[in-house]
Amino acid sequence: MGVSLKDVALRAGVSVKTVSNVVNHYPHVTPATRARVQHAIDELGYRPNLMARHLRKGRTGIIALAVPELGNPYFAEVAGAVIDAAARHEQTVLLDHTAGLREKEALVSQGFRAHVIDGLILSPIQLESEDLLARTAGPPMVLLGEREYDAPYDHIAIDNVAAARAAVRHLLDLGRSRIAFLGAREESARQPAHLRLSGWRQEIAASGGLARDALVAATDGFDRRDGAVAMAALLDRGERPDAVFAYNDLVALGAMRVLSERGLRVPEDIAVVGFDDVEEGRYAAVSLTTVAPDKHAIARLAVDCLLERIGAAGADPAPPPRRIRPGHRLVIRESTAGRPSRPRPPPGSWSGPGPGPG
Amino acid sequence: MGVSLKDVALRAGVSVKTVSNVVNHYPHVTPATRARVQHAIDELGYRPNLMARHLRKGRTGIIALAVPELGNPYFAEVAGAVIDAAARHEQTVLLDHTAGLREKEALVSQGFRAHVIDGLILSPIQLESEDLLARTAGPPMVLLGEREYDAPYDHIAIDNVAAARAAVRHLLDLGRSRIAFLGAREESARQPAHLRLSGWRQEIAASGGLARDALVAATDGFDRRDGAVAMAALLDRGERPDAVFAYNDLVALGAMRVLSERGLRVPEDIAVVGFDDVEEGRYAAVSLTTVAPDKHAIARLAVDCLLERIGAAGADPAPPPRRIRPGHRLVIRESTAGRPSRPRPPPGSWSGPGPGPG
Repeated sequence: MGVSLKDVALRAGVSVKTVSNVVNHYPHVTPATRARVQHAIDELGYRPNLMARHLRKGRTGIIALAVPELGNPYFAEVAGAVIDAAARHEQTVLLDHTAGLREKEALVSQGFRAHVIDGLILSPIQLESEDLLARTAGPPMVLLGEREYDAPYDHIAIDNVAAARAAVRHLLDLGRSRIAFLGAREESARQPAHLRLSGWRQEIAASGGLARDALVAATDGFDRRDGAVAMAALLDRGERPDAVFAYNDLVALGAMRVLSERGLRVPEDIAVVGFDDVEEGRYAAVSLTTVAPDKHAIARLAVDCLLERIGAAGADPAPPPRRIRPGHRLVIRESTAGRPSRPRPPPGSWSGPGPGPG
Repeated sequence: MGVSLKDVALRAGVSVKTVSNVVNHYPHVTPATRARVQHAIDELGYRPNLMARHLRKGRTGIIALAVPELGNPYFAEVAGAVIDAAARHEQTVLLDHTAGLREKEALVSQGFRAHVIDGLILSPIQLESEDLLARTAGPPMVLLGEREYDAPYDHIAIDNVAAARAAVRHLLDLGRSRIAFLGAREESARQPAHLRLSGWRQEIAASGGLARDALVAATDGFDRRDGAVAMAALLDRGERPDAVFAYNDLVALGAMRVLSERGLRVPEDIAVVGFDDVEEGRYAAVSLTTVAPDKHAIARLAVDCLLERIGAAGADPAPPPRRIRPGHRLVIRESTAGRPSRPRPPPGSWSGPGPGPG
């Protein structure tokens, strides 16, 4: 490490205590002294050993956030919000992605990289309750997302059933009666492990309709490609939905691409609702109606809960696990409401030459 | 911190040296002994103090990656690739976003969080060469992206001028003559600080055409909204481009949304080319022609260069800075090539009832 506090103090002509005060951002140091010490720090390339200091307190000042896929803009947007929320508590966020793999999620939850983090915010997709109950070590952890667990951890998630029911209610109110669900995991297509599928079933049943399994399309994942493959498969096996409720926006956008290829109009032939309110949906050729979770509240609550858990580590008994539900709302756009018609400009006005140099 | 190696050794009934061998993944420990030690580690909740060990070597095993915007899928895709590349060298990546702000980029480059990182990969947008030349401290750093700097740092970037020229060449080959550039920074619209705008100018000039400033649309940033605003402004001031080359895919997608609202067809009325090859462009209603940088090569080269620099820290003279150009290619899709026409199914086949419960 080389340069010490003492070296800086000698160079700046001040006491070690004064250097320490500057490095620790204590008040009561005059601007002139602060500048002299900072100059010596810069000259010598001194790196304050904050990490070692954190370690003496048993802390690193770093929390981890593990999400299934950084390529999914929902998680990228949530990650940005978590970084901002953590920065307000002077915490650094270490970002990891699990690729939605059960083994990777289990590895992360069991304290992988525990040596560098004080706590973990995990958004699992494939992890099972038994994986969590088997967790014997690792730092404090908070869970995010729509998977429900019988495990003693704080869990931050919007009310996915209510949100899905509101989306389906909207489609029913538009007079749609053959509403497909796109994006069920194969294993959960018939016994809904996920809540959005369950909300789809409940709302259709409540309306007196029949939630047909044939209108549930399983997917391998929750990406655009999965949505495209599932939509094509549904149409190819002769199903004729008049609406699609997709697990998330990416699945919805992939499905809309296939509908466009097949010459089917959105929303006239098939209305589409997604979930997540990613920015991409607002700018799609047909803008996407979606369930918008309150991402900033999710991020803030996750960081607050985790810091409380870190602060209470070792308390006996531990505070009971909490189930926290941030808000959500349905955002109605063109994929269900259509677009106010606007005439095409006459062809002549576009085929002529431009107005000339200028 | 509480639990020590000695506690684990006592519980497992082995020597401290044996526990150390297990924790450090040394070979020559029998599976049975390894299991016994691991059991004791789990029972006691022992956290091997790897970080402190790293620190004794003056390392943390963490590299930082600072990108302008996690919400931009290009950076999310590159970040995923960097995390993978770093993991192959047992390095953990700490992800930060600068929001493309010069002050935040300068802060990061000057060693913000230097206490937790061994090195930094920075993708700057607004940073100026003088900011880099003023850098007096901070860990080894490698630069990514299309901004050019006269500063002594390794820089990984595709040949942006050549890539932009290939995109414009493609539009010229299609017979387009009024090619707009969307996404210039206001300050660089007339004196191209960025290379893609420069490539646009060069290729049009090489074809004997006139690169009209009136067809350059400035934007505040490089997001979908910026593309939409710039496209609308260009049309509203009476310009009639027959093609658009956008700074990146997000700008192109925002522009395409406005073209759709105005009843203009892509590519018939206006052909569009983006830059980055983000997955979203492949699934747009009209799939997007784009320049595809080799993101995996970019990530691998950035990590390799940075680890070399970390290894050579303190070498005098330092190895000279390198300029490394990973590959790129033009991916032609519907936004320039059009779509093979496919007839709409007759309305009757979609308005009838479904095939019944099944």
